[in-house]
Order: sequence, then structure tokens, then C-alpha cells
Amino acid sequence: MRDMTKEEIKSLDKEHVLHSWSVQGTLDPMVVTKAEGIYFYDADGNKYYDMSSQLVNLNIGYGNEKVADAIAEQAHKLPFIGPGYAVDVKSELARKIIELAPDNMGKVFFTLGGADANENALKIARLYTGRNKVFSRYRSYHGSTMGAGNLTGEPRRFNCETNGVSGYIKFFDPYIYREPIEFKSEVEATKYYLAKLREQIIYENPETVAAIECETITGSNGCIIPPDGYLQGIRDICDEFGIMMICDEVMMGWGRTGEYFAFQNWDVKPDLVSFAKGVTCGYAPLGGVIVSKKIAEYFDDHKLLCGLTYSGHPLSCAAGVATLDVYKEEKLVENSKAMGKILGEILEELKRKHPCVGDVRYKGLFSALELVKDKATKEPLVEYNSDPDNTMGKIIGSLKKKGFSTYSHENCIIVAPPLIIKEDELRAAMDIMDEVLGEVDKMI
Amino acid sequence: MRDMTKEEIKSLDKEHVLHSWSVQGTLDPMVVTKAEGIYFYDADGNKYYDMSSQLVNLNIGYGNEKVADAIAEQAHKLPFIGPGYAVDVKSELARKIIELAPDNMGKVFFTLGGADANENALKIARLYTGRNKVFSRYRSYHGSTMGAGNLTGEPRRFNCETNGVSGYIKFFDPYIYREPIEFKSEVEATKYYLAKLREQIIYENPETVAAIECETITGSNGCIIPPDGYLQGIRDICDEFGIMMICDEVMMGWGRTGEYFAFQNWDVKPDLVSFAKGVTCGYAPLGGVIVSKKIAEYFDDHKLLCGLTYSGHPLSCAAGVATLDVYKEEKLVENSKAMGKILGEILEELKRKHPCVGDVRYKGLFSALELVKDKATKEPLVEYNSDPDNTMGKIIGSLKKKGFSTYSHENCIIVAPPLIIKEDELRAAMDIMDEVLGEVDKMI
Repeated sequence: MRDMTKEEIKSLDKEHVLHSWSVQGTLDPMVVTKAEGIYFYDADGNKYYDMSSQLVNLNIGYGNEKVADAIAEQAHKLPFIGPGYAVDVKSELARKIIELAPDNMGKVFFTLGGADANENALKIARLYTGRNKVFSRYRSYHGSTMGAGNLTGEPRRFNCETNGVSGYIKFFDPYIYREPIEFKSEVEATKYYLAKLREQIIYENPETVAAIECETITGSNGCIIPPDGYLQGIRDICDEFGIMMICDEVMMGWGRTGEYFAFQNWDVKPDLVSFAKGVTCGYAPLGGVIVSKKIAEYFDDHKLLCGLTYSGHPLSCAAGVATLDVYKEEKLVENSKAMGKILGEILEELKRKHPCVGDVRYKGLFSALELVKDKATKEPLVEYNSDPDNTMGKIIGSLKKKGFSTYSHENCIIVAPPLIIKEDELRAAMDIMDEVLGEVDKMI
Repeated sequence: MRDMTKEEIKSLDKEHVLHSWSVQGTLDPMVVTKAEGIYFYDADGNKYYDMSSQLVNLNIGYGNEKVADAIAEQAHKLPFIGPGYAVDVKSELARKIIELAPDNMGKVFFTLGGADANENALKIARLYTGRNKVFSRYRSYHGSTMGAGNLTGEPRRFNCETNGVSGYIKFFDPYIYREPIEFKSEVEATKYYLAKLREQIIYENPETVAAIECETITGSNGCIIPPDGYLQGIRDICDEFGIMMICDEVMMGWGRTGEYFAFQNWDVKPDLVSFAKGVTCGYAPLGGVIVSKKIAEYFDDHKLLCGLTYSGHPLSCAAGVATLDVYKEEKLVENSKAMGKILGEILEELKRKHPCVGDVRYKGLFSALELVKDKATKEPLVEYNSDPDNTMGKIIGSLKKKGFSTYSHENCIIVAPPLIIKEDELRAAMDIMDEVLGEVDKMI
């Protein structure tokens, strides 16, 4: 690769690259040339805490030599062979994944990312049950290919909803903070949500429902954490009606919440699990679906009507094998839990201190701060799917200017640093957040 | 990565890996441990001509050190940063792609493979036109996520067609060999196909049609080559009605047909081009959509409602930059044309010689042999979407046993070797084909 100046990199990018989810004309993309640990650097040498792990994928941080070496080795050995063949790295990665998954799990179908993981989870559930409908929630994101996009509940779905798509049924999230009613207890809330879900499934005819798919903990849409008993309740409803329970662990999997999989926080066993991001931390693209032994057995004598050229890509599988070793050797899941405890304390303190912080929600090293105009009325800082003054963009910009990189969604700021973060780094970064929240207080 | 025996690789694969498009119980996946040039080797040291370039992606063959080095370098430098940032390898790859594309092209949206390339091409066409419907052909494959799967015309679509999906209109392919009528000339055939397409578009209401998407030359569905004037005719229909012309170049792009893009064989300029496979040859997963300057400009002040975590993945872009250099330095597009000429001559000879070969079709180094029970009646060796005796599988198995690896689709055998193939290798491999076709002759 030839050397390029910062100016050339930027101007070619502006000239020839289309950027996700953006009006292109107003973009001023930062040029990144270097990254290490929990930090990345722009071309002027400015250093940023990566407090979102990019798109919540860089769990092991930047510059991990073990994973880079594994990729380099595989690139020279056998970067690619078709999905029909058996290769050591694919076999080994599948073994490691099943070892970490609950004991009801049997096999893995590999994809390239989260969207196609969810596409295939849904397909497999439909094939296995012979049913069409799928339940998913409004405040959710499952990807943007057409199937994953229709599973998605938030506005990024709207462009995937062409006229006439049917069978994608949405239900309400357990979003206790914003319910128009107040629950006396978490137990009551759980009871309410499960009763409404069961009622809706009955209205839709349970015999037509293939799957209920949820992000185990809602990711970008604001870290909505299921109340105790909620996931087990979904498990029970699925068992009652022969519906497949799909946990989308694309963002929450691989240690993010202090367990390898988020559903392990509540000891629940889904039928299918979609994953991506943390399995390679984005060092190479990889995703997949873990299916139960029961589902795997079904496909022993039924054709699996799923496929992609790069299913089980050896380069990506090599990255995955090395990444899973890193989690174990560096005790990152444990660190996620330990640092998550500290992050939670810091967030509660910020909530106490700042009028603009309506709610904070956190589990392990995934968290969201929900910004409001008024703590008592809970009026959100920006309305749903509408931020004409780019208020949230400006807050994210302020954070970034001070060296704190993350992203927002609706009126929430996501905080989800790499799982390698140390206590002093976490505290130093969150001091920046404290400062910027002080500025927001003055705005409201 | 630890050392594993052949037996362990295979047994873990069978235990834990779900394979594409297969009944899992009957699989006996070959263990591959080594590959070089146009050959790969099983764990027992047997050597195979890769006469399909795996899934028509390994254009530069195996073991290219330049691309492996580029991947290794990027893995250590910056394997990943989010799609919102500008990075040298992404900027440079976009520049190179636009340089090779027709002069009406402006920008690239990067994806991970062909399916999401087609998903996003369709989305962009819908956003740009404000229309919903899309025309694609029956004998086509565009991927298996839900949008790409509904674009697909052949049986791999059936599982993606959930009740109620609308807006995916199918039209007939210019499949002259199997038409129930006989054309007096190619000119007459072209006129016929274009008239029928235009008629169908009018029935569907042209003002609701966002795009016509075709594989420029049909890939796995049997190398169906557009007759002269056909692509220009589609271009004209698109211009008449304000419809976007999308060429799916996932399989045919990057030199496969003797030009960088297959539509350059007929000097036609589409509005959008989807690509994948050959851009990195699968050394790392990458795909994308090239859009015209006009479309690119539209998104200067309209939001591009497309996105994926790994859009413009740096590791994959680094592989792409190096791969495009290899095409140029090793003159692979020229070799594709030169070897394609020889392949065509060999195929014509096989057709003359073997009663079982009904038709051969080829362009550059992509080709298909269509097998029949009877040359006069053209009765296909196996019926459409039905091969209960696994006849085609057995033929592919015979080829493989003799060291010729490829795949079949319906009654066609695909021959599409890496573009680095030399004349003596090509002739030696095709001698094996000759031998196996002799066995097939005896079957019919």
C-alpha cells in the first residue's frame, strides 16, 4: 500500500466513498491512521478514548498482536476455501463456540456479520417450524438487509418496509422508564409485559409464529434491560406454543455484559443465538447462528436452505479462534463485570448530579445515559426520530473534541468501552462525560 | 492455531458446523489443508484442479503472496475502524474501482459480499427513484438474504418468499437455447426479448418500477449470454421510463469474462453495479455497489439509509487494493480473454464429440456445459429443480475423483478456472472433462 497524505485520504474519501446512514454532502470524515489499546488517533495525532468500542465490536481493543498474527498466518496459509470443505480453523472455532454456549446448543452456521446472522436465524426458525411469522420489538435493531431490516423495530426499519411485506409482528419493549403507567415492582412489570406478549401471540395465531427474536439486552436503542423473569417468561411462552426463541447477541455477546452471552445473566437457554462483532472484534468480518442440538438434528435429514460464499471464511475463523483465546487469557469477561460495576457507580453518580440525565442503564460494560429536558416529566431531550437542530450530534461532538469518542441514538448516549479498559482510564474518560453533561445541564 | 489431525478436523466439522444448501446427515466434507496456484490439496495429499475457482471467486488463484502480505500488514496496522472514518486503504480502493468503472460512475458503497451488495443496490435505487418494484430474471441468483433472495429467480428464492412479499417482478431470460420458438437470427431474438420486457413493464406501471437488475451474464444458472443489442435495449428501456439499470457483476466482474466488468463486452453503462468475489478473490470478505455520479450527487443532500458495521472494512479494503494491483501486474484480464478463446474452442470440440453435450456457452473464463439426454430434442439430463438420483452430483463426483473440481447447477456443469491458468493446465484439465463426458454418453 502506497503512502498517502491526510489530505489525499480525506479528499478521495469524500469523492468516492458513500458513508452509512448519512447525508453525504455535510460529512467531514476524520482520517484515522493509528490505534492502540482503547485509543485511536486522528491524522493530526489527537488521541481519543474509544468509549463505544467503535460500533460495540472492539471488545479486545486495538492492536492485539495475537489476533493480528493469527490473521497474518492464515492469510499466508489458506485465506479462503469454499464453505463445503472442512478446515482446521472453522472446526476449531465451532468447537470453541459450542463449548461456551449453553449445553442445549449443537451447531454453528457461520455468516459475515450481524445482519446475515439474523437473516439466517430467522430462516432456520421458519424452516424448522414450518411457520412464517416472527415477533420482534419496536426499540430494536437487527441489521439492514431486508429480512434483518424488517425484524428491526426502530426507524432504520422504515426503508426496508416495502409495500406488502408481512409476517413481521412488533411488540413493545420492557421499557419501564418510559411506560405511561407506573409499576409497583419489577415483578409486576414482568407479569405485565409477558401477559401482553402472550395476548398478542394469541391474536396472531400461535400456530403461525415461527420465532420471537429479541436483543437479549437492547443495544443501540438505549440499553433496555429485561426485568427479572422476563426472559424466562419468553422461554415459557415459546415452549407453550412451539415457537423458537432467538436471542440476538450480536452486540451483547462475547463478554460485553459480564458474561459470554447476555442471556447467561438470567440463566435462560434460547433455541437460536445470532452473534457477530465480538467473536472477532471486527479484526476480520464474522458472524453466525448457534442452533440447538434439536434444530441441528432436524437438518440431518432436511435441507438447510441457507448459504453464502463466505460462510465459515477461513481468514475470519482464524481471527475468531485467536480472539476467543484472548478473552480467556486476558480474563476479559471477568474484567467486563468488574469494570462494569465501577461504571455503574459512576453513572448513578452522574444521574444524581446532572438535571439532564433522566435515567442510566448498564450491565457489564454496556450502558446508556438517557438525556431529558426535565427529570420530573421525563421529557426527552430530543423527540423520537426527530432532532432537527442536531442537538445530540453536538453533544457527541463536544465529547469527541475533549477526546471521548462514542455515538448516540435518539436521546441516549452509549458508553461501551473495550473490555480491556482499566479503572483509571474509565474514571478519566467518565470525567470528560461529567464535564460535557454539565454543559448540557445549561442547555435545558 | 493448534495442530489438528485430519480426523479431528472432519469430526469437529461434522459435529458442530452447519453447511450451506445441504442435508447435513449425508455430508462427508473433504478436509483441505493446502492450496497453491490453481490447485488445492485434500488432507491425503491428493491434488485438484480448481476449475470453478471455488465459487467463481478465486480469480488470482491460491497463495498469492502480495495479497497475503497486504492482509498481514493491515492486520498489524489497523485491521478495523468504523465506517464513519476515512482510512487510506478504503480511499485508495474506492479510487481504483472508480478508475476501472465506466466514466459515468462516481462513488462506492462497500459491503461484505454479493448478497448485501445487491440488497444495497436495490435500496439505493428505491431511495433514488422513490419507487418500489424491481424486475429481475427467473434463471438468476443474487444472494440469499431476504432482499437478494427475492431478487433471485431460481429455486434458492423459494425459501426467501414469505407470504406477502411484493414488488419483486420476474421476467424471462434471453435463454435462446431453450426457447420453445426458434429465432431466425440473434437480432430477432434481441428484438423479441426487449419487446416482451417492455410490454411487461408497461403492464406493471413503469412509474412504480425502481430498477431492472440482471446478472450481466448469468452465472451459476448456466452462463446465459445476452444476445447483441440486448443490454443496450435494457439501457434504452430504463432511460425511457426513468428506471435504474443494475448490473450484478458479483460473479462476472473483475476480469472473469475478459473485461474488468462483463458489460464492457457490449460497451453499456449501467446506473449501479454490484460486485464482490473477484475484488478480493475471497482472501478477505468484501463486496460493494458502484453508483453513478448522478446517484451519488442525489445523496449529497438526501440521507443514504444504508449501513453495516463492516462497510469499508480496512482489512478487506487492503486485500482489495493488493488484488486489483495483481490483476494489472499479472495481466490477468488479458489472460482471461486469451485462455477464454482456447477454452471456447475446447468446449465446441466437446460439444461436437459428445452426444450428452447439448450446448456450450462461454465468455472469457466463464463457461457452462449443458447436458442433455438427446441432442435433437434437447431433453435435459435432469429436470428443473429435480434430480432424485443425484445424477449431476455423481458426474461432479467423477470429475473430482479424477482431480477436476467444479460444481453443477441444474443440468449444467460450470467451468471457470482461476484467471492465472496456463494453456497446458487448461488442456490437461479439460482432458479429464472429455473423459468423464464419455462416461455420461454411455448413461444416456
